[in-house]
Amino acid sequence: MSKVVNHEFTSSYARCVQARSQRSYSVQVIEGLCGQGFERLLEVIGHRRALLVTTPTVSKLYGNTLCRQLRHAGIDIPELILDCKEATKTLEQVEHICAEAYEQGLDRTGVLIAFGGGVCTDIVTVAASWIRRGIHHIRIPTTLIGQIDAGIGIKGAVHFQGKKNYLGCFYPPQSALIDPAFLPTLPGRYLSCGLAEIIKVALVGDRELFMLVEKHANRLLDSGFTDPPQPVRAILQRSIQAMLDQLEPNLYEDQTYKRLADFGHTVSPLLEAASGYEIAHGEAVAVDMAFSCVVATFLGLLDRDCCQRILAAFVDARLPCFSPLLTEQLCLEALQETLRHRGGAINLVVPTEIGQATFLEQPDDLPPSVIRSAIQWLIDFLKSTQT
Amino acid sequence: MSKVVNHEFTSSYARCVQARSQRSYSVQVIEGLCGQGFERLLEVIGHRRALLVTTPTVSKLYGNTLCRQLRHAGIDIPELILDCKEATKTLEQVEHICAEAYEQGLDRTGVLIAFGGGVCTDIVTVAASWIRRGIHHIRIPTTLIGQIDAGIGIKGAVHFQGKKNYLGCFYPPQSALIDPAFLPTLPGRYLSCGLAEIIKVALVGDRELFMLVEKHANRLLDSGFTDPPQPVRAILQRSIQAMLDQLEPNLYEDQTYKRLADFGHTVSPLLEAASGYEIAHGEAVAVDMAFSCVVATFLGLLDRDCCQRILAAFVDARLPCFSPLLTEQLCLEALQETLRHRGGAINLVVPTEIGQATFLEQPDDLPPSVIRSAIQWLIDFLKSTQT
Repeated sequence: MSKVVNHEFTSSYARCVQARSQRSYSVQVIEGLCGQGFERLLEVIGHRRALLVTTPTVSKLYGNTLCRQLRHAGIDIPELILDCKEATKTLEQVEHICAEAYEQGLDRTGVLIAFGGGVCTDIVTVAASWIRRGIHHIRIPTTLIGQIDAGIGIKGAVHFQGKKNYLGCFYPPQSALIDPAFLPTLPGRYLSCGLAEIIKVALVGDRELFMLVEKHANRLLDSGFTDPPQPVRAILQRSIQAMLDQLEPNLYEDQTYKRLADFGHTVSPLLEAASGYEIAHGEAVAVDMAFSCVVATFLGLLDRDCCQRILAAFVDARLPCFSPLLTEQLCLEALQETLRHRGGAINLVVPTEIGQATFLEQPDDLPPSVIRSAIQWLIDFLKSTQT
Repeated sequence: MSKVVNHEFTSSYARCVQARSQRSYSVQVIEGLCGQGFERLLEVIGHRRALLVTTPTVSKLYGNTLCRQLRHAGIDIPELILDCKEATKTLEQVEHICAEAYEQGLDRTGVLIAFGGGVCTDIVTVAASWIRRGIHHIRIPTTLIGQIDAGIGIKGAVHFQGKKNYLGCFYPPQSALIDPAFLPTLPGRYLSCGLAEIIKVALVGDRELFMLVEKHANRLLDSGFTDPPQPVRAILQRSIQAMLDQLEPNLYEDQTYKRLADFGHTVSPLLEAASGYEIAHGEAVAVDMAFSCVVATFLGLLDRDCCQRILAAFVDARLPCFSPLLTEQLCLEALQETLRHRGGAINLVVPTEIGQATFLEQPDDLPPSVIRSAIQWLIDFLKSTQT
């Protein structure tokens, strides 16, 4: 477990301490948590002191019903309703949860339940990691992006001093419960944003998933992700599986800076910020992916027809492929920032075909002329789709 | 790495995700960080963007010199001076550090340096765990208790809503640098508090360490831990080694609730709180240990002479063996609280001889009559030492 090293000169004692932590958590699709899946929910919560953290909308749509059902089953869980938006993804909200947890007498054996979208699960994750140096939390993501991305990994964060996700944690939940029954009440724009992240994992690792989305996007969006039923299930499961396959070997992001799950996440943070968060996360990711695909085509890494097919899928998923905020300067800034974050490489993910991708590792692999050409190509493409 | 389990009924997909993290950190004794050990300090810091967090006293005594030396070596590290007391061990202080870190442009590759006592290293640990979901930090503890206990594990915490250490983290430093050259300026009371934790690890696992303290306590305290030089080194190294031996197998406190390092830490938290923190942590630990030893003697687990010898060591270390705040009621409350924290058992650590200890696992193992007798015995002992 340890070794004692004796240095010469000044150091008379040195020991290398091993800090190992191993947890596991479950990600489950349970259809109808407020219906036929309710028993399973009860099992997961158990008879622990708990605090349910939710949003005004989710509380009104589902929270009241759920709490009533829980009370009926003999479990009285207080509900904390928080405004969960990007603008309120702050330390103050985390502190608010901690204060309520303390008020409700949660100790080391207590549990927080996050019932809402990505912002809600993010701030609850941070709060759970703080309380008594870490208590259990259960996530019930209610948005598509939460169900296949933000809610199933181990990251939590809040914005700080205007810097997106400057403070946060890596902290696994005990359980993430995924229920597609929450999706029909989601605004269409949020469904599209979820599809952006689904297309992301599909493009870097699951060709069949891409084909399912390509085939059903319109019907999925029109039906609030209920129709056609079999493809809905297949898409959810495959997306979760593909995402977890990408995340699991590097959950703490300490193994490698080359991560396929970073596809679409290089220029998108600056794009979101530049829009004052008017462009939603999934939309920015779509623009970033479209840009990366065109870049790949210009570099001869991706077939032109393939690129066109991917862009067509974005259009079907009602996602943007371009924004006037995507300028050469913004791209260069984003690459500079990425260089700092990804250990001295840009590691830009670019698809080589549908379901496979590679990395542009160094800034030299992406000359400014290619950036300029790709942006111009997207402007022309946008015009062609509008006419 | 993963397995897919198919449930019948409602759940159509379930996956168990493994979240493994493995870090290592070094604990080194380096004599004269501002002198002959300075080169080693430079090596550890390296050429990273850094922020030094320290206290007004430490800054005046050592910080200015250190920063000047660093600048001379071409490393300009901004210094953040924070009031680090129990009363200011708060979220606000952590936030203050994060704001300064952001201001100074610390990104994922940045490093925080904690230069002060246990409160300083605790809040810096929490801040480091938050920033960019975790950046490196180096601890340079300047108190004896920091050097052999608070500064060498992986825990950080702040008080919240009047509850001691309600919020915090398990987060390993990159390095803890232990320099006895900081000890001579420490008030005698703080040296005694450090000796309390040293006696703690000695009693549960290192008989020879106990004998060193027993033999030299008076001279160590009179000389500000400089004399006699060889025993000073031996005591520091053995204490660190003994403490890390206890901590390492269970650093995240997720392996067992039976921890010998909890010796002296059962009634002491309530004792500290009851005194409004007038009783220092080490003093409360000493009273708790004295009580536990007398309890062990009453239960026939510890030889009476051995118990007397231990209490004599506390007296030599200028530590209290009793406080009027140690009442039967306080003990019973503490055991109740412990039952909740230690997984439904009290797991009270009691020595069986010098260097060995066992656990009283259940509340029944410690009847109120024994608690009463032990308290009365300590009252009589106190009278006998005062006359």
